[in-house]
Amino acid sequence: MKLVKESFGPSYKEVEIGNIAILAKDKPLRLDCGRDISSFPLAYQTYGKLNTDKSNALLLCHGLTGDQYVAGIHPVTGKPGWWESLVGPGKIFDTNLYFIICSNVLGGCLGSFGPKSINPETGQPYNLDFPVITIADMVRAQKLLMDDLGVEQIFAIIGGSMGGMLTLEWAAKYPDMVYAAVPIATSARHTAQNIAFHEIGRQAIMADPDWCKGSYINENKFPAKGLAVARMTAHVTYLSENALHRKFGRQLQDRKAVSYGFEADFQVESYLRHQGYSFVERFDPNAYLYITRAMDYFDLAAEYDGVLANAFVGSKTNFCLISFTSDWLFPTIEAKNITYALNGSAAKVSFVEVTTDKGHDAFLLDEPEFIATIGGFISGVAKQRGLL
Amino acid sequence: MKLVKESFGPSYKEVEIGNIAILAKDKPLRLDCGRDISSFPLAYQTYGKLNTDKSNALLLCHGLTGDQYVAGIHPVTGKPGWWESLVGPGKIFDTNLYFIICSNVLGGCLGSFGPKSINPETGQPYNLDFPVITIADMVRAQKLLMDDLGVEQIFAIIGGSMGGMLTLEWAAKYPDMVYAAVPIATSARHTAQNIAFHEIGRQAIMADPDWCKGSYINENKFPAKGLAVARMTAHVTYLSENALHRKFGRQLQDRKAVSYGFEADFQVESYLRHQGYSFVERFDPNAYLYITRAMDYFDLAAEYDGVLANAFVGSKTNFCLISFTSDWLFPTIEAKNITYALNGSAAKVSFVEVTTDKGHDAFLLDEPEFIATIGGFISGVAKQRGLL
Repeated sequence: MKLVKESFGPSYKEVEIGNIAILAKDKPLRLDCGRDISSFPLAYQTYGKLNTDKSNALLLCHGLTGDQYVAGIHPVTGKPGWWESLVGPGKIFDTNLYFIICSNVLGGCLGSFGPKSINPETGQPYNLDFPVITIADMVRAQKLLMDDLGVEQIFAIIGGSMGGMLTLEWAAKYPDMVYAAVPIATSARHTAQNIAFHEIGRQAIMADPDWCKGSYINENKFPAKGLAVARMTAHVTYLSENALHRKFGRQLQDRKAVSYGFEADFQVESYLRHQGYSFVERFDPNAYLYITRAMDYFDLAAEYDGVLANAFVGSKTNFCLISFTSDWLFPTIEAKNITYALNGSAAKVSFVEVTTDKGHDAFLLDEPEFIATIGGFISGVAKQRGLL
Repeated sequence: MKLVKESFGPSYKEVEIGNIAILAKDKPLRLDCGRDISSFPLAYQTYGKLNTDKSNALLLCHGLTGDQYVAGIHPVTGKPGWWESLVGPGKIFDTNLYFIICSNVLGGCLGSFGPKSINPETGQPYNLDFPVITIADMVRAQKLLMDDLGVEQIFAIIGGSMGGMLTLEWAAKYPDMVYAAVPIATSARHTAQNIAFHEIGRQAIMADPDWCKGSYINENKFPAKGLAVARMTAHVTYLSENALHRKFGRQLQDRKAVSYGFEADFQVESYLRHQGYSFVERFDPNAYLYITRAMDYFDLAAEYDGVLANAFVGSKTNFCLISFTSDWLFPTIEAKNITYALNGSAAKVSFVEVTTDKGHDAFLLDEPEFIATIGGFISGVAKQRGLL
């Protein structure tokens, strides 16, 4: 474990990253695209301690724009981690009981090997020379991290959205290493609509002349406007119409009547602009291209002759699928399709559709039924595993 | 009626516009924003002939990016009009029976008074000095056009999406002039989600440095990339997930395997890029800002003390509301809310939810149940009116 500094954000400020493992030192990692990577960094945070029989490791997988700071103070934003309410002593992911690991994905932008990493051959950032990575590649990198940390079996892998894709990929590729898996608000493959929204985000970034064909760091530019539009588009897909209506409706922002102009008259406009322009302070535009691409490429069944059930044949993993009624980005039918496949391979699976109007983002919010579901499942399998 | 030419599109090519009426010649038109406009052009097309008792006028109202070319060959794209399949001899909107009028909305970009019109005081395009217009302003302009054409009562007003908003506004403001009204796939007010998607489109346009703070014509630039991203975003909202899945699924474009790059690997990406970049050939970026703004501002109930039913008190208009099961942009609940309001004001109203997986765009597509519904209603009221 060591502290390093890393350039970050449009102002290229340096931030301290907690733990970084250097992986594939002895043997290169072959990526799906055919390229090999070696001695690459993967940044991660841990909470709690690994017990003596190494049976209490809990791997939390973040979503598209999340990172390893699942709890504690985020070094860039200064805000609490994305599952702060779930991780800690006495919480559902109890740091007195579990050894919790969360790693920034391969291709990410908070200390892990990604497009803004320096290419030792050129002394410059990789930018678009960085290899296109896949969800399977992200999981391969996490597997190397588990080896590095001495974790032979993971008690539970839990993740929402893209994190759910990683969870599924883990359970498919390393079934004996995964005692329990909780894929939340996710899908076994990106749909045409999912791809379409990601493509809009990518087009918005690439349309920004400050993107400089990916070489903005070299040019000392930053495509903030393009990245902000990408984030705004994505953000709307994370919320339900009801949630937006409840939060904002048609209420005006700091005014009593419309301006008859193009300022942010409506609160929802002001909110979206804030979401877009605060995001650019913490995320790398090229990393956004790469990670969205990895999600688009994800199609677990395709790796198993087009039959999703084949991905889980003989699996002893305990699965708990969770979806949200108002999630239109990864609707319940996707979780059901995974459940059917798991049933088809005789796996142990439970499935809960949580009633909420909070949309896709519900997995990051204080949603009692969701928290009760995940807490109940985890304590159930923990008892079964002898951890409770 | 006269032929004029008008600069148009990123290449500023000139196109011939059919009919243009000069309106508010004697008395200025007061807009909602408080500004007056006078002697302004409104472009329109007509099909069929006004009968001797002037009882057969049918006003068709286009959507956000539509225009007056509801039938016939579009002068910019060379393609058939947007309701070509419905307008013509023997068709549902039978040009042997009806005098069909379709006008480019106020604020539009195909011959009507809009942001790229020349300000006579400066000799330059108005750009952002153009007044922000509302749906009510668009209807006021259409009312002047009806006066100009000698139409005292309109047999039926029909429109989808924004055209449905105009239809509702017409029925509320000039009830005695509207014998029948068919608002399709629309709402009596733009929701927070609707506003959010429009705001993303506006932000994409305004993020493009070639937008030049609205003065791109003066600078001989054109924000094609920003406008294309705006169109892509909007386009995804016009289609259902099922329609996208049926059309494209995860099929690859002209290749057998993914490229591990950022080209348009998937057909849906290729399709979206085409939609975006063909749109910029026919639409004005500032007009896109103004017309989306008009839709965002639309809130018919707000004009009637917050009670939608008050908008239709004493109305004798025959209403037929149509929604589509898979339209998530203007879902059925919006049509139901209008229907409840019409019921509350004792208006004559029928409501049909058409089962289709084609999403919001279904009103522009060959959707048999929709066409049968609209055809049945129109012929029914035509008999009642003595036209059949």
